[in-house]
Amino acid sequence: MSEEAIEFAHQNAGSALDELKSLLRIPSVSTLPEHRTDINAAADWLIERLNRLGFQGRAIHAGGPPVVYGDWLGAGLDAPVVLVYGHYDVQPVDPLDLWKSGPFEPEVRGDDLFARGASDMKGQIVAHMKAVEALKETTGIPVNIKYLIEGEEEIGSTHLAEFIRANEDLLSCSFCLNIDAGMIGPEIPAITIAIRGMAYFELRLEGPPGDLHSGTFGGAVVNPANTLASLIGKMHDDQGRVTLPGFYDDVKPLTDQERSDLAALPQSDEWWSQQSGAPVLGGEQGYTATERATTRPTLDVNGLLSGFIGEGGKTVLPSKAMAKISARLVPDQDPHKIHESMVAFLEKEAPPGVSWEVDLLASAVASIIDRESSEAKAAMAALETVWGVPARYKREGGSVPVVGMIEEMLDVSTLMLGFGLPDDNLHAPNEKFHIPNFHRGVDTFIRFMTALAT
Amino acid sequence: MSEEAIEFAHQNAGSALDELKSLLRIPSVSTLPEHRTDINAAADWLIERLNRLGFQGRAIHAGGPPVVYGDWLGAGLDAPVVLVYGHYDVQPVDPLDLWKSGPFEPEVRGDDLFARGASDMKGQIVAHMKAVEALKETTGIPVNIKYLIEGEEEIGSTHLAEFIRANEDLLSCSFCLNIDAGMIGPEIPAITIAIRGMAYFELRLEGPPGDLHSGTFGGAVVNPANTLASLIGKMHDDQGRVTLPGFYDDVKPLTDQERSDLAALPQSDEWWSQQSGAPVLGGEQGYTATERATTRPTLDVNGLLSGFIGEGGKTVLPSKAMAKISARLVPDQDPHKIHESMVAFLEKEAPPGVSWEVDLLASAVASIIDRESSEAKAAMAALETVWGVPARYKREGGSVPVVGMIEEMLDVSTLMLGFGLPDDNLHAPNEKFHIPNFHRGVDTFIRFMTALAT
Repeated sequence: MSEEAIEFAHQNAGSALDELKSLLRIPSVSTLPEHRTDINAAADWLIERLNRLGFQGRAIHAGGPPVVYGDWLGAGLDAPVVLVYGHYDVQPVDPLDLWKSGPFEPEVRGDDLFARGASDMKGQIVAHMKAVEALKETTGIPVNIKYLIEGEEEIGSTHLAEFIRANEDLLSCSFCLNIDAGMIGPEIPAITIAIRGMAYFELRLEGPPGDLHSGTFGGAVVNPANTLASLIGKMHDDQGRVTLPGFYDDVKPLTDQERSDLAALPQSDEWWSQQSGAPVLGGEQGYTATERATTRPTLDVNGLLSGFIGEGGKTVLPSKAMAKISARLVPDQDPHKIHESMVAFLEKEAPPGVSWEVDLLASAVASIIDRESSEAKAAMAALETVWGVPARYKREGGSVPVVGMIEEMLDVSTLMLGFGLPDDNLHAPNEKFHIPNFHRGVDTFIRFMTALAT
Repeated sequence: MSEEAIEFAHQNAGSALDELKSLLRIPSVSTLPEHRTDINAAADWLIERLNRLGFQGRAIHAGGPPVVYGDWLGAGLDAPVVLVYGHYDVQPVDPLDLWKSGPFEPEVRGDDLFARGASDMKGQIVAHMKAVEALKETTGIPVNIKYLIEGEEEIGSTHLAEFIRANEDLLSCSFCLNIDAGMIGPEIPAITIAIRGMAYFELRLEGPPGDLHSGTFGGAVVNPANTLASLIGKMHDDQGRVTLPGFYDDVKPLTDQERSDLAALPQSDEWWSQQSGAPVLGGEQGYTATERATTRPTLDVNGLLSGFIGEGGKTVLPSKAMAKISARLVPDQDPHKIHESMVAFLEKEAPPGVSWEVDLLASAVASIIDRESSEAKAAMAALETVWGVPARYKREGGSVPVVGMIEEMLDVSTLMLGFGLPDDNLHAPNEKFHIPNFHRGVDTFIRFMTALAT
């Protein structure tokens, strides 16, 4: 029944790519206030697109960037209601000088389309809408669909929880299809059965009230930059384990089955080296790279700033030092308890002579889902048909705050199905989307929605 | 015999301050290439001033900013030849927003003149030239004088050693008077008998070849920002001692006499708190703040930079991390041996998965001088007459690379006599010079030069 829609999609593949480029040209960077107009422009683009699909798209303001919502419930009461989640905001582009083409000037090089947001995740949104369009124009859309496309995922989905809570009826559904997801390799399709959570901190230290001459005062006063470094150094032990008090209290050990499932994935340590570009890997001892990156919690410094950072030397004893530090969390860890762990660590370890403040800038809980659900089975079947090889179950190292929110507030589980690749340079210069995956993604969504209805 | 000159100086005190303001308006920042024109303008200002004193000033190019040289040898063969050392370059002004008035718009507030370079050290240069002028216009200049005023002290005097070596005859002298110096308090005159040396490093770490998503890769790869922090943390032990191998090998323990001399200075730990603004002090255990800041070597972070440092959060796993780190050294420590210590530490401690590079950006040896020399005695007597209280011998925490160079190449010792104060905000926003010290400095230089000749 889906063949006709797939034929339609194939005939319109060129215009699909043009539509994606058009959306990618809008620099909808949510972390930077100066892009607020662009955020609105991206929302408007989606609303216009939804309207062309007959979905009555609209922008709903909930305090942050507008949430784009649009539904079509013409498939009848017996058909499932799929809540499709996505986000139209993108990460900042710095360092800009490392991009080979403009981040908002989409460029095809080889089999890839380069632009900020190509893989994370405008490519996934356009692929799903093209699948809906193909069904609409041929055999009809077989399931009820509600689109929920937010504009602040990259800044921690600050207002989304409130929005979902205030719109529980509007968003009620059979399950959530989260398309902010990816595969293992271009020829290795997969659905994501677990994601990590996050607690993102900004830690600020202050020593003397002003910068001092490091000759005159060096040795007499506590240097907040040295102190910050020392504190961060103490946050791991020599086995690579995080030392924040209670950090591992809620972490379940991996079962033998889980470890052997993970070992069977085509993600050797060598594969992680290739994907990351790092010839030598490292981290918590006693685990493979796949285990460390997807099933174990971490604590990574995301940014450091103190004192003089220009060319040459300045003999300053800095007054202040700042670090951005984020923990990736695994199922059952609570970001707010991890915040308490961080505070307890600092209360114990910070020396006299410096003051400190730590803010939890963003948080998300981890999640893990049932492989035996009908939606998981439909997705696995669709992937296998399109790619011609069995699909895999994978665990994901990244965080998707909305998964926990939807589970908690709408009482439905989330299926993660998307077509990004590990080397897509997410959040980094030269982000790209693998164009064959874009087109096969459209086919997969067509087959998935069709299978759901039968 | 000096009273007539002092009377002249007092009558011309207003024009002296105006002259200083005129020099302070030139933003001669040597660390920043865009100020090269200003560097030349400051050199021209000094040459013009020297010519008015009858000194035949000239700019000598030695690879960096020009060295200003001018001599007057009319005092005869029996009179000493004083090589007056100073520098006309100044530190950068950032963070600019913390200045209460423009750094290059000198402003008098209360008893202080605020501007970048006021105390470090254009104020000292103009004070000495006004003393020479007063002597010239009254009783005559009693000693032979050679001015050596460089323009790259704040960037480590890179070309000065070569310049001195190439001009040994031109610069030959009885001793060097280094006026880049200060007192203990506005009413506590002092000469400096020891200064610390320096080894200033830039340490750069690189992990993965590009920034990565901290969700996707966090845990799998070695994070260079965490590693940098950990390495810096390990550079001190829990007693506040530096752990670089061999760091203390050449450090002489303080004698009981030295410790009791230092304890008698009006520099209690409370005084250091007031001067630095830091309510709680800290550092190497077992030493007072005065001992730590003037007689013990240190290792301070001057700057840190890695990853995302903007507003909010970015979940990046940075590719690179950088620290500026400087050691203050004490007599007999060799900056190049300390560089080797740093390299040995990194070779031992840096983990696999990150590469590192460390550059020695600037270096200076420490120095200590003889209290019984005739110039030291003349300086102590001049200070006591002008201030009306006994002067002190002090040790200085800062570094003056030229002192070691002159000792090595010209085979003369250096007397450090200047009028800066510990709270002058050297190298920091709101640098100032205490105006009464400027005028009493002129008087002191007049009495000192007169005493030298008798």
